[in-house]
Amino acid sequence: MLRVPPVIVNFKAYSEAVGENALRLARVAAEVSEETGVEVGICPPHVDLRDVVREVGDEVTVLAQAVDAAEPGGRTGHVTPEMVVEAGADGTLLNHSERRMLLEDLKDVCRACINEGLLTIVCASDALAARAAGALSPHAVAVEPPELIGTGTPVSKADPEVVERSVEVVKEVSEETAVLCGAGITDGSDVRAAVELGADGVLVASGVVLADDPKEALLDLISGLE
Amino acid sequence: MLRVPPVIVNFKAYSEAVGENALRLARVAAEVSEETGVEVGICPPHVDLRDVVREVGDEVTVLAQAVDAAEPGGRTGHVTPEMVVEAGADGTLLNHSERRMLLEDLKDVCRACINEGLLTIVCASDALAARAAGALSPHAVAVEPPELIGTGTPVSKADPEVVERSVEVVKEVSEETAVLCGAGITDGSDVRAAVELGADGVLVASGVVLADDPKEALLDLISGLE
Amino acid sequence: MLRVPPVIVNFKAYSEAVGENALRLARVAAEVSEETGVEVGICPPHVDLRDVVREVGDEVTVLAQAVDAAEPGGRTGHVTPEMVVEAGADGTLLNHSERRMLLEDLKDVCRACINEGLLTIVCASDALAARAAGALSPHAVAVEPPELIGTGTPVSKADPEVVERSVEVVKEVSEETAVLCGAGITDGSDVRAAVELGADGVLVASGVVLADDPKEALLDLISGLE
Amino acid sequence: MLRVPPVIVNFKAYSEAVGENALRLARVAAEVSEETGVEVGICPPHVDLRDVVREVGDEVTVLAQAVDAAEPGGRTGHVTPEMVVEAGADGTLLNHSERRMLLEDLKDVCRACINEGLLTIVCASDALAARAAGALSPHAVAVEPPELIGTGTPVSKADPEVVERSVEVVKEVSEETAVLCGAGITDGSDVRAAVELGADGVLVASGVVLADDPKEALLDLISGLE
Repeated sequence: MLRVPPVIVNFKAYSEAVGENALRLARVAAEVSEETGVEVGICPPHVDLRDVVREVGDEVTVLAQAVDAAEPGGRTGHVTPEMVVEAGADGTLLNHSERRMLLEDLKDVCRACINEGLLTIVCASDALAARAAGALSPHAVAVEPPELIGTGTPVSKADPEVVERSVEVVKEVSEETAVLCGAGITDGSDVRAAVELGADGVLVASGVVLADDPKEALLDLISGLE
Repeated sequence: MLRVPPVIVNFKAYSEAVGENALRLARVAAEVSEETGVEVGICPPHVDLRDVVREVGDEVTVLAQAVDAAEPGGRTGHVTPEMVVEAGADGTLLNHSERRMLLEDLKDVCRACINEGLLTIVCASDALAARAAGALSPHAVAVEPPELIGTGTPVSKADPEVVERSVEVVKEVSEETAVLCGAGITDGSDVRAAVELGADGVLVASGVVLADDPKEALLDLISGLE
Repeated sequence: MLRVPPVIVNFKAYSEAVGENALRLARVAAEVSEETGVEVGICPPHVDLRDVVREVGDEVTVLAQAVDAAEPGGRTGHVTPEMVVEAGADGTLLNHSERRMLLEDLKDVCRACINEGLLTIVCASDALAARAAGALSPHAVAVEPPELIGTGTPVSKADPEVVERSVEVVKEVSEETAVLCGAGITDGSDVRAAVELGADGVLVASGVVLADDPKEALLDLISGLE
Repeated sequence: MLRVPPVIVNFKAYSEAVGENALRLARVAAEVSEETGVEVGICPPHVDLRDVVREVGDEVTVLAQAVDAAEPGGRTGHVTPEMVVEAGADGTLLNHSERRMLLEDLKDVCRACINEGLLTIVCASDALAARAAGALSPHAVAVEPPELIGTGTPVSKADPEVVERSVEVVKEVSEETAVLCGAGITDGSDVRAAVELGADGVLVASGVVLADDPKEALLDLISGLE
C-alpha cells in the first residue's frame, strides 16, 4: 500500500533545487531518511524527475509537482500520469496553490493517478476546499493557506483551526485520506503543532530548500514527529 | 428557504434567447409555471438578467448562468455575487461544462453565493465530480455528461447509472443538496426517467430554447414530473 | 467611423458603479460630455449594460468591460459580441489586466467585434504586449502597467517611457490604431502628460468612480485635454 | 546566431515518444541529420528533456514543448526558461494549440526565452494570430490550423493561403522572424508545397512519431526541402 510520508519537501522552481542542486537536495533527503528511519517525500521539477528517481528512488518517495489532465497522445507540453509512472516516480502533488486546476480536470487526473498506482496528494487552500478535494478520495489532502506560504509563519500555529477543521471535514468525506498541512512550516515545533492538531504530516518548501543547511533543517522538522 | 425548481431552463447564448427573445421565453416559463403550479427556473444571459427579473421575477426563479469568484471592487468584466443579488435574481448556476471553474474559485464563489442567499447550483460532469461539488454543500448539483449535452439523447436513459450514482454520492457528502440531471433532456419521458432514478429535477437548454413551440416543450417536460 | 473617446471610464465591479449607481454615474458622464463637447466613454458591468445604453446611449460611448470568444449558441455564462451589439452598446474593452485572454481567443474575439462594428479597445501591460495587441488592428490599444492600477500614481508621470514606446510600436504595426494609457490617472495634469507623450486619450476607473465628486473629477480630467 | 531547423518534430505526449522511445526517436533524428546534412529539431516531453540532450544534444536542436511564464522561485509544477537552459536544451515551442497561453504570459515568456538565448518558436492558429505572435519578434512563428492537426491533410495543400498570408504578415511586423507551418504534414511533397509558399520549414508530430518507420518518414520529409 502507498504510504504518505510525514514530511514532504516541494523543490518548486527554486534555483537551489534544479539540476545538480536537485540531486544534492535529493541525497540530503535520502540521508536524513536513512538516519532517522522516517520516510521522506521530495518533489523535484519536471525536468529533474528522472534523474532524481535514478539517484534516490529506492530511498525516498519521489513525487512530481503536478500532473496534467491529459492522456497519452497528441498533447503538447503536458506531463501525463503515464509519464510520471514511466519515469519511476511514486506519486504527485496536484492543485498546488501555484498550479490550481479546474475541478473537472482535477477529478480526471486524480482518478487517473490513483488508477496508475501513484500516491496522489491534492492541495487545498482551506477546510472547505479540503472537503471538496477529499471527496475525490486521494491518498492525502494538503491544506495550505496561500497567504502563509513562504512566510515562515506556520499554519499550524497561526491558524490552528484550519488544520483541525480540515482533518475533521476530510475524514467526513473520505476516512482513508491522510491530511497534511503546509505553509510557513520551518521547524520541529511547527511540525509538532501540526501533528497535535491531527495532521498526518507536513508539506514544506522554502523552509528546507532555502535553508543554510537543508539537512539540519530537515532533521529539525522530523524531530517534531516524535 | 430556497427551493430548487424541478425544471430549470438554461438560455445559454442562443440567439433565440437573447434580448426580446429572452423576455418572450421568460414569459412562456411564467405562463407554464402558473398553469401547472410547478416552479420553473430560467437562466438568461448576463446582459438580460435585469430585464428578465423585472418581467417575470415574481413568477419564476431567475438564475444567472455563472458568477465569477470576485468581490466588489477593482474587477473588470466580472459578474459578482453581489451584482446578481442587486439585479434581483434568485440564484445562479456555477461550473457549467461551458464555463468550468478552478476548484478554489468554485469553492470561494459557492460560499459567497450561499452567504448572499442565492440559490446555488453547481454543475458536474459525472458522479465523482458531483461528489466533489456536493462537498461544497450547494443547494443543488446538476450532473451533465458533456458528451450528451445538446444531443437529444437523454442522460436519464442513455446513462442511468451516472444519475443514480450521483444521487447516492452527493447525499453521502451533503444530505440537503438536491440532485438535478441534464444533457439531452427533451421530453416528459426523459424527465420521468430522471425522477425515477432519484433526481430532484432536470436542467434543460436546447430542448426548450430551440423547440418549435417552447411552451409545448416545457409543458411536456413538466408532464414527466407527475 | 468609430471614434475612440479621449476619456473612458471603466466602472469595474465597484459597488459605487452597479445598478442605480451605474445609472447615476452614466448621467454624470453624459452631462460632462454635453457641457464640454468632449466625447466620453463608459464601461458599465455586464448586468447594467442595457440599462445604461437606454439611459445615455445617445450621449456617450457605451462599452462592455469584456466580451468572450464565443459565438451565439450553446455557451453558458458568456457575453458574446452579438449580445453587446444587440444591447445597443458601441464597443468593448478586451484583455483588461483583470480579465486577461488567451492570445488565440483575443484574436478571435477582436476580429469578431471589429466585424460586428464594435469599437474594440485591447488592453496591454507594457509596450511589447501593446505591439502584439496592435498587430490585431483594433481601434485602440490601452496600455496599463498593472502595478500602477488603482494606485493614484499616474503611468504618464511614473513611467512616461512605456507610453511613448507603446505609441511608437503600436503605430509600427497598425497605423490607424489609437493608443490610450491608463493606471493611476486621477487629474487633468496626468491626462495632459499622457497626451504630450503621444497618447490619444486615457482609460480611468477608481479616479472617477471612487471620487467624492465624480463630475468634478471627470471635468478635471478633461481639462487636461486642452 | 540561432538557426531555426527546417524540420522540427514535436514528440507530444505520444507513448511512442516517451522514455526509451524518446531516446530512440532522438537517435533517429540525429542519424537523419547526419546523413542528410539538414538540421533537425526535436521536442521531447519535459521529463525526457535532459536525457535527450545528453543523448543527441550535440547533433540536433533540442527544444522544450512549452515553457511557463514563471521566474525561478516559489512556483510549483512549472518549467521555467532557466530550467530549459540548465537542462542544456536549445530552445522551446510556445503557445502550441494544445497549450495556449494568455497574451500577457506569452509576451513575458517569449521575452524571457529570447533573453536566455533560447530559440523561441511561437505557434499560431492562423495568419492574424501569426501576426500578433510575430509582433513579439520570436525566432519563428509556426502556423498550425488546429482543425488540420493530426489529420494527415497537410496545411500546405489544404489551406495554402494561410501559409502565404502568414509569411506576408509576419514579415510585416518582424522581418527576421522565420515562418514554419504545420498540421497534417506527412511527406516530402507537403514540405515542398510549404517551402514554395514561402515557409522556412515545417513542424510535424504524428507524421513522424507514429510512422511505421520514423527514419524513412523523416528522410521523406527532408527530401521535400531540396
